[in-house]
Amino acid sequence: MSQTQVSFSTLSKKQSKFIKSLRQKKYRQQENAFVVEGGKNVGLLLASDYTVQMVVGTATFLETHVAFGEGCTVPVYQADEAALASLGTFNTNNAALAVVAMPPDSASPPSDAWGLVLDDIQDPGNLGAIIRIADWYNIPSVICSPTTVERYNPKVLHASMGSFTRVAVHHTPLAPFLSHTSWPILGTFTMGDDLHHTPMPLPGLIVIGNESRGISTALLPYIQQRITIPRYGQAESLNAAMAAAVVCDCWRR
Amino acid sequence: MSQTQVSFSTLSKKQSKFIKSLRQKKYRQQENAFVVEGGKNVGLLLASDYTVQMVVGTATFLETHVAFGEGCTVPVYQADEAALASLGTFNTNNAALAVVAMPPDSASPPSDAWGLVLDDIQDPGNLGAIIRIADWYNIPSVICSPTTVERYNPKVLHASMGSFTRVAVHHTPLAPFLSHTSWPILGTFTMGDDLHHTPMPLPGLIVIGNESRGISTALLPYIQQRITIPRYGQAESLNAAMAAAVVCDCWRR
Repeated sequence: MSQTQVSFSTLSKKQSKFIKSLRQKKYRQQENAFVVEGGKNVGLLLASDYTVQMVVGTATFLETHVAFGEGCTVPVYQADEAALASLGTFNTNNAALAVVAMPPDSASPPSDAWGLVLDDIQDPGNLGAIIRIADWYNIPSVICSPTTVERYNPKVLHASMGSFTRVAVHHTPLAPFLSHTSWPILGTFTMGDDLHHTPMPLPGLIVIGNESRGISTALLPYIQQRITIPRYGQAESLNAAMAAAVVCDCWRR
Repeated sequence: MSQTQVSFSTLSKKQSKFIKSLRQKKYRQQENAFVVEGGKNVGLLLASDYTVQMVVGTATFLETHVAFGEGCTVPVYQADEAALASLGTFNTNNAALAVVAMPPDSASPPSDAWGLVLDDIQDPGNLGAIIRIADWYNIPSVICSPTTVERYNPKVLHASMGSFTRVAVHHTPLAPFLSHTSWPILGTFTMGDDLHHTPMPLPGLIVIGNESRGISTALLPYIQQRITIPRYGQAESLNAAMAAAVVCDCWRR
């Protein structure tokens, strides 16, 4: 058995420092780049439209992925598991991470974008889960207020379980966007029409509010219909991601 | 204005050590006690059937809650916010915590219990969220395998947002329980009958499997019907708590 041996460089201190700096939003925005952790996500990225600037992987990961053999145009570096984990945000990473360029125009949604509209969602786990839900239900866009947690936050990417490569996520001022759309606009409220008995137009836009304060007053004039997940018991509220799951299920039904 | 001044002791070192020890499951089980953090949860507990063994609160919290005035039978201690946070699991706690006795027979569900059955759910945030969903949809019981994360885990209690005081949560071997129930038993699978077009008997039992492995082989003989949340897009799976939310919404609908 003859096999082409490809050897990979190790990272310089400067490169390690650069990758670690991308944990912070400030540096992500300065460098227009973000880090994606985990072998599965790195594989998804290489098959997507994203521009991967650098891959760091374990010897095992790199050897078993033919894409990193001869002719690979992405700079590839080798690191052991401990070094990989120290570069990223999560405690364990037994495969790979990638540095990825932020798509240049991802901030502004096209005027005909439709899907979920998030008004100031704060928890990165919630945003990641909502992106995953949108992917499950084939809702093409998640349009976020500028105050919603950043889509390139490592916890958002992690919770989205790869769905960030398939759902268009935008951050844009919501009032101008909603004032120019031609889709119907619904919003989730504690007192509104019962989701189980309300026709929900598809395509359309459904606004989901902040985890504690709900939808902000400034957006109320744009909401044409208020919908509510019917409550049968005593919990005061549902978590924003769980509410999004129920809304999308009823929307597609 | 005359006001009865009640003065509160501060905690001894031994008491502080005892409370901190309850972060660990081993000591919770040894002491048959657990800690609940946050002023709202402490208030809910005092109004519930749980036996509260001790309350630690800030001066503001204790002064504004008449229950801690004269005649209060629960030992009450005063602490500042920093001390409170250092006793518990979460970084901030600006109000109170309580030490609570585990209900003695909570492990075994009655044979006619109905609701969600969790087979080896590992993430405390998921279990807490599922308890909150059960509460929202008035599903009375959550019956967990012994390998499911412990219901008195601080993150479970936190994520349940007070719903742990209203939903009966049991940990019990599932095969014997399922073999003795007279309710219909459904289970969630990736390949099963479409949840949108399947009548779901209420009361009944719906089994939800482990986050990565699904329902264990040993339980398959008890499942009378396999149900599936229809997928419209490309995400490989839904998070267990979001799946539970969609299942409960369709169940109650």
